[in-house]
Amino acid sequence: MDRAQVPPQPDTDLQAFCEALVAEAKALPDSGKLANYIPVLAEVNPYQAGLAVATIDGQLFSAGDARTGFSIQSVSKIFGLVLAMNRLGDSLWKRVNMEPSGMPFNSIMQLEWEHGIPRNPVINAGAILVADVLVSHYSSSKTAFIGFIRQLAGNEDIFVDDKVFRSEKLHGNRNAAMGYLMKSFGNIEAEVPKVLDQYFYQCSVNMTCEQLARSLTFLANKGVQPNTERVICPRRNAHRVNAILSTSGMYNQSGEFAFTVGLPAKSGVGGGIVAVVPGFGVICAWSPRLNEYGNSYLGMHMIARLTEHLGLSVY
Amino acid sequence: MDRAQVPPQPDTDLQAFCEALVAEAKALPDSGKLANYIPVLAEVNPYQAGLAVATIDGQLFSAGDARTGFSIQSVSKIFGLVLAMNRLGDSLWKRVNMEPSGMPFNSIMQLEWEHGIPRNPVINAGAILVADVLVSHYSSSKTAFIGFIRQLAGNEDIFVDDKVFRSEKLHGNRNAAMGYLMKSFGNIEAEVPKVLDQYFYQCSVNMTCEQLARSLTFLANKGVQPNTERVICPRRNAHRVNAILSTSGMYNQSGEFAFTVGLPAKSGVGGGIVAVVPGFGVICAWSPRLNEYGNSYLGMHMIARLTEHLGLSVY
Amino acid sequence: MDRAQVPPQPDTDLQAFCEALVAEAKALPDSGKLANYIPVLAEVNPYQAGLAVATIDGQLFSAGDARTGFSIQSVSKIFGLVLAMNRLGDSLWKRVNMEPSGMPFNSIMQLEWEHGIPRNPVINAGAILVADVLVSHYSSSKTAFIGFIRQLAGNEDIFVDDKVFRSEKLHGNRNAAMGYLMKSFGNIEAEVPKVLDQYFYQCSVNMTCEQLARSLTFLANKGVQPNTERVICPRRNAHRVNAILSTSGMYNQSGEFAFTVGLPAKSGVGGGIVAVVPGFGVICAWSPRLNEYGNSYLGMHMIARLTEHLGLSVY
Amino acid sequence: MDRAQVPPQPDTDLQAFCEALVAEAKALPDSGKLANYIPVLAEVNPYQAGLAVATIDGQLFSAGDARTGFSIQSVSKIFGLVLAMNRLGDSLWKRVNMEPSGMPFNSIMQLEWEHGIPRNPVINAGAILVADVLVSHYSSSKTAFIGFIRQLAGNEDIFVDDKVFRSEKLHGNRNAAMGYLMKSFGNIEAEVPKVLDQYFYQCSVNMTCEQLARSLTFLANKGVQPNTERVICPRRNAHRVNAILSTSGMYNQSGEFAFTVGLPAKSGVGGGIVAVVPGFGVICAWSPRLNEYGNSYLGMHMIARLTEHLGLSVY
Repeated sequence: MDRAQVPPQPDTDLQAFCEALVAEAKALPDSGKLANYIPVLAEVNPYQAGLAVATIDGQLFSAGDARTGFSIQSVSKIFGLVLAMNRLGDSLWKRVNMEPSGMPFNSIMQLEWEHGIPRNPVINAGAILVADVLVSHYSSSKTAFIGFIRQLAGNEDIFVDDKVFRSEKLHGNRNAAMGYLMKSFGNIEAEVPKVLDQYFYQCSVNMTCEQLARSLTFLANKGVQPNTERVICPRRNAHRVNAILSTSGMYNQSGEFAFTVGLPAKSGVGGGIVAVVPGFGVICAWSPRLNEYGNSYLGMHMIARLTEHLGLSVY
Repeated sequence: MDRAQVPPQPDTDLQAFCEALVAEAKALPDSGKLANYIPVLAEVNPYQAGLAVATIDGQLFSAGDARTGFSIQSVSKIFGLVLAMNRLGDSLWKRVNMEPSGMPFNSIMQLEWEHGIPRNPVINAGAILVADVLVSHYSSSKTAFIGFIRQLAGNEDIFVDDKVFRSEKLHGNRNAAMGYLMKSFGNIEAEVPKVLDQYFYQCSVNMTCEQLARSLTFLANKGVQPNTERVICPRRNAHRVNAILSTSGMYNQSGEFAFTVGLPAKSGVGGGIVAVVPGFGVICAWSPRLNEYGNSYLGMHMIARLTEHLGLSVY
Repeated sequence: MDRAQVPPQPDTDLQAFCEALVAEAKALPDSGKLANYIPVLAEVNPYQAGLAVATIDGQLFSAGDARTGFSIQSVSKIFGLVLAMNRLGDSLWKRVNMEPSGMPFNSIMQLEWEHGIPRNPVINAGAILVADVLVSHYSSSKTAFIGFIRQLAGNEDIFVDDKVFRSEKLHGNRNAAMGYLMKSFGNIEAEVPKVLDQYFYQCSVNMTCEQLARSLTFLANKGVQPNTERVICPRRNAHRVNAILSTSGMYNQSGEFAFTVGLPAKSGVGGGIVAVVPGFGVICAWSPRLNEYGNSYLGMHMIARLTEHLGLSVY
Repeated sequence: MDRAQVPPQPDTDLQAFCEALVAEAKALPDSGKLANYIPVLAEVNPYQAGLAVATIDGQLFSAGDARTGFSIQSVSKIFGLVLAMNRLGDSLWKRVNMEPSGMPFNSIMQLEWEHGIPRNPVINAGAILVADVLVSHYSSSKTAFIGFIRQLAGNEDIFVDDKVFRSEKLHGNRNAAMGYLMKSFGNIEAEVPKVLDQYFYQCSVNMTCEQLARSLTFLANKGVQPNTERVICPRRNAHRVNAILSTSGMYNQSGEFAFTVGLPAKSGVGGGIVAVVPGFGVICAWSPRLNEYGNSYLGMHMIARLTEHLGLSVY
């Protein structure tokens, strides 16, 4: 017996609905603003919007700027986490918790309070710790990381935006503070600058909505990549990633997102949001302007509308 | 199209499995300890364990001490929340947030930090605020509360344990502190002692696993009580309650619970845990001994095993 | 050998200087605002200003509104502390620390962080604890308190302003929160409402600059009341009170006050400030308008000018 | 008129008293332990104890190991602060507060809470900021720093212990975290590694009790070096340094130190403590074993006894 053994079948008009949603979103009153913590992100055309849905039975629907590359930023935390879980197994959870953070995504206060153990692996401190795992356990951690993404997306052209990468490194003082604080608690193995280099590299990957949606379908399919039948991670790890994304993936708006959308999801300050629909597929929305929580303003709108229309909430 | 349109059918042997689970749980090495913050809770026989499953198609499976009454304590927060949402509508969310708490369930620090706005309605501060809503909006808020539960459970014999009620009031200084702190921020309308009286009354309701499971099936059924077809709350409110329970229902173990079980759930220090399986039903486990987070030690075990066996995780 | 064995002799023109200072202060551009946390404090004529200096050799200089009564508010914490130290001896320091607070004077966060032990006895939480000591150790704690002040001031007409007292009780929710929080940690003996009643009573004493200055000269004279030669407290307790006032008496401006004035001092939101000059005497300035830290705007000015003029800094 | 115009005259037997005090201290039951946050500090002979008193009239009394060099560690914060105040003037106080910290000396939490503005210049964060001032305003900040100390002590042999310096740099992750956090708030001008290099350099100066006591007599003499009549800093800056040391110089034991000793003082984890007696001179005690607050166990004892004996408390 399985609660979701019969996956929903996409409406025949899902493609049309996606297109209508992008049009609707672009017509909304101007709102939100570009990330500006690194200058290069503030140079993006703010009026773009894309939407893609990749289903576990191999269909792909997309609309708007869904084939335009953007900086995936914190969405990269998912890829890092899956790699680190595969590599370390359960011992990872001695070094990072799996609880919601309850504070802004970059709170160093909570890290101090909890003695250098990040609340979860999808806040910055946790993702820096994950980067340390990769640096410490792969001889070539950058190659391993980008290679993993290329394999998942089935696309060898996915690249790291060097301009973003260098800009991140120049403006990463708060992340450096968290790295050194964890190091002071003995929770970082490698040298902090090397860990930060890996972390910023991961944030600087450039992908499109279509690529992101497709690359993460294994999370909606119990760890198995639908098209290739490759096991990307054990079933229970796919469940776990989804659980963490459900409680903590949308910064300090995670609770509200669960409330209004009800899906495991992760956003990045580049404007991308991915949402996993277990047993169905993955949605990726992108639009660069952000709301006060750092989540894409139009991206939130498109995902909420799509989820409601298709009845996808897990609750 | 609906992701979960075909609800899972209970195994023919679910009754047998429940019985086996209770036996398995009772045979586990002794662990956990009774709540002792009020003396009367420490007087309960610690070796009891019960399990009940109520499905939305009207079946009821139960085993062990599933017909023994216990103090529902924080599980009562669900009933209060549904009543307050029905009464106030969306304006409730101006006075309480819907984000995970990220700190222990009774943290007054976070309440101060966020200017008297509780993180969510299922931590103590949030539930005290909900009690204020009931006190301020019902002429007889205690009668309304117990009447609501009796109606949901279809059982007029459900009662408030007066000994627990009086004990709560004697040992409720921290809750009083939170009440007065919210009052100082202008976020409590009624007199604080009256609000606390209502709050402790709600915590002191005595119910069995069978009664709790049955009374909450509307949350698994889009707000509709399965047997009577009565609309208990709007569909979206049922979704919302489930979402809040998913991120915040299990105290500071909520993230781990999402990780290992993957269901909306709420526990109480009386040892009860209810878990909602949207489209299927409600599980209630009870056993008085608590782990370090204040969640029932054997209750966690039984729910995790049952959920895994039936593949009920929403992720 | 004693570092300060020769007390400074007042200038022959100290009286004239005090009068000039009040005139200077009253001529300053309008600034600061009345305390408004209880309505009755907001009804005071904001343009009053008084200054008094009582020396340990029995002289009294005063100017402006130095004989007008005002609500002494937190200045009362000194009297309560001396009484409680006399009564409990060193065991008092098991229940309250003597460290600077480093946070706003009414921070409940720090109280939680430090498990119900207030940082020091001159922040609100510490003074509430002191009130608990008085309530628990005197059969008639209000009478003992006002009697102590009357004796120190040599004036039986000093009274508690009943209108202020009732207003305090109506608006004391934050203090109630701190009382209940300490009670929850087992650090309050009496019933919280009774403790708060005592605390608000103490805050509501009405005195003039002249009365306050004279009543506290024992702190500048090693515990001995100059005119009567009565030992009010042991010499080391006088030192201790001065030490606590030096690090913590001026709310979150204590460090700056030490920096610019360099004297043990205590202010109240009624606009009064007393400063102790060991080996010399006590200064009391009063003016109702407060700066952003809750300290009297003109009072700060007058005390800083007087201290600099007379070279009174202890540093 | 001046409150302390007649400085106390040393007893003819102060030398004998110092010797007796060291003997008394060394005979106390073994207590406290060596700093171990950097390995080299844990290699010091723990049973040493020295005491020196330098008066503003040029006398020097000393006993025990008062001519043995030790790592001055945080005592160096005084020299850095005086240099930075001389260099920047009042604009320094836009970048660092002058309030007591109320939390452990290396709390990064408070730094975050107050947006990268350290509470005061003698906690680690504040001293790192001071190091940034020196790095940014001197072409050769290390030379300027050690030169300033050599001039004050009248001894060109004072040196930086290179082994300590390198050890500090290897174990300074928490300080690095604070440096990067302040940088992220825009409150550090120079490159963080360069600032930390300067900070660790300052901590690694090696001096004796006699040298330290003599070098700081200007603080007891209104900014003027007694023997040379050189103005080291303006009178008000000497007052200010003393005020800051009074509220914040002894880590989280500052309040208790004011309470029991009543002097401006600064300690370091190398076991040194200096106490300033305005109008009299400077005491320096040293013994490597530390109490739970990081202050020298025997050093505290010797200073408390000496201060009480001579009646030196400023309160």
